[in-house]
Amino acid sequence: MSDIDGRAVAKQIRAEVAAAAAKLRADGTVPTLAVVVPTDDEGTAWYVRSIKKAAEKEGVDCRVEQLTAPGRAEIIAKLEALSADPEVHGIICQTPLPEGVTLAEVGWYISPFKDVDGANQESLGRLAQGRRTFAPATAAAVLELLKHEDLTLAGARAVVVGRSTVVGKPAALLLLNESATVTVCHSRTKDLATVCREADVLVAAVGRAEMIGADFVKPGATVIDVGTNPTDDGGLVGDVDYAAVAPVAGRLTPVPGGVGPVTTALLLRHTVEAAELSLTHP
Amino acid sequence: MSDIDGRAVAKQIRAEVAAAAAKLRADGTVPTLAVVVPTDDEGTAWYVRSIKKAAEKEGVDCRVEQLTAPGRAEIIAKLEALSADPEVHGIICQTPLPEGVTLAEVGWYISPFKDVDGANQESLGRLAQGRRTFAPATAAAVLELLKHEDLTLAGARAVVVGRSTVVGKPAALLLLNESATVTVCHSRTKDLATVCREADVLVAAVGRAEMIGADFVKPGATVIDVGTNPTDDGGLVGDVDYAAVAPVAGRLTPVPGGVGPVTTALLLRHTVEAAELSLTHP
Repeated sequence: MSDIDGRAVAKQIRAEVAAAAAKLRADGTVPTLAVVVPTDDEGTAWYVRSIKKAAEKEGVDCRVEQLTAPGRAEIIAKLEALSADPEVHGIICQTPLPEGVTLAEVGWYISPFKDVDGANQESLGRLAQGRRTFAPATAAAVLELLKHEDLTLAGARAVVVGRSTVVGKPAALLLLNESATVTVCHSRTKDLATVCREADVLVAAVGRAEMIGADFVKPGATVIDVGTNPTDDGGLVGDVDYAAVAPVAGRLTPVPGGVGPVTTALLLRHTVEAAELSLTHP
Repeated sequence: MSDIDGRAVAKQIRAEVAAAAAKLRADGTVPTLAVVVPTDDEGTAWYVRSIKKAAEKEGVDCRVEQLTAPGRAEIIAKLEALSADPEVHGIICQTPLPEGVTLAEVGWYISPFKDVDGANQESLGRLAQGRRTFAPATAAAVLELLKHEDLTLAGARAVVVGRSTVVGKPAALLLLNESATVTVCHSRTKDLATVCREADVLVAAVGRAEMIGADFVKPGATVIDVGTNPTDDGGLVGDVDYAAVAPVAGRLTPVPGGVGPVTTALLLRHTVEAAELSLTHP
């Protein structure tokens, strides 16, 4: 088994981002990402700080828009204002959202031209149509990692465990666009281990610590672990039981150091792409 | 094996449509479907006549908008005008389109409130988000037929053969919303028969006459045949080899008389729903 090195992939993407950002700045455009943070949540705050640090290191400005106990209308107003602001190129709305508000509903107010984390239904629809669009960064990171491997996705059997709108479904659509034969599993799937063992490429996006054991993995399969489950001692573990699966899988992403850093790097890549798009489609 | 009777399902839906249309008319709203026909195509002309006849029988007005050798701009202008017309509630743009024009790109100009055949990327995105929306009528017909059977979709293994934006992908998303474990196959799938044999519910939407043979079907499976392939003698056959599959399948839709009539009935149901929607969201 070999580890898939997410940090190395992220480093390469971030070098490309830094070059594109420098060029944009030289031409008078400061690529700018706005991160709307609607709730006080420690995990979110940590994540937002890490995005901001990464962005600024590569020459992308990052505006954190912390809202205090906002209602739906206030979140929507903020997203509309940022969508209309010519100095903002990328917009993310962090979850969790206040009770009763969903990302699916407020995502509509992020302009599709700035929707660097694919929250708008138009972005998702374009993805389903197989057109160019911003995919949710985590789903895009799954594909990016697979494309860095020497793998043939066309005709491969891919199994995605998890059907969320932000990861499972867009990852499945992206894999389908690459001509994989794609199965989506979830909490209602019967005999999940058996279905997962059909996979040449297994994507775990369930959000349950280490639930994917050795018996879920066909020998030699490529396993992408999207999970980031906090442990009691302040660490992170994935949805895959790394120690158990490593002897069976052909390739496996570690947690941390797999999907996570690539997701951040792709948010930045999407932001410079959105800044470039703003020059031709102001 | 028992046939799934699409005509009976369609009849029931059309009776509901007729009742809803009569109520709308009594309240001063004439539910109206506009069908934009951008090319001279005999098959299309036949299909459009059949929709018009069905619509008018149930109290839905049907405006056929035949365009002569239109460019992209003319098609878009027509769809925009119909989207803005308060007397039109549902809009379909018929394929085939002129060379170089795709339904994915012109579908954007059909208001999502009138998009009764789910051609707009926003409709498809909402479908992927699991929200209320108009799904493409053929994909919706697949689900409608399954729901009329005494079947449990949650946890069932569903295999969709075909990944088109108008049938395969939306049918897969609808099945996923019903908690089936869903696999999408296509021309690049390896060992297609084996994958299909995993299915409790098999949806054939490939557009190749009778390509699904007995060896593609698990004994007792429910098979929905979306194919409508013209035969040399002027008839229609499905994507399923009916004679071969009938002894193996538990239930099977015939062609004609399966998905087709239900698709037409759902276009009408969507149109009265859109007319109802226009009263609260003018």
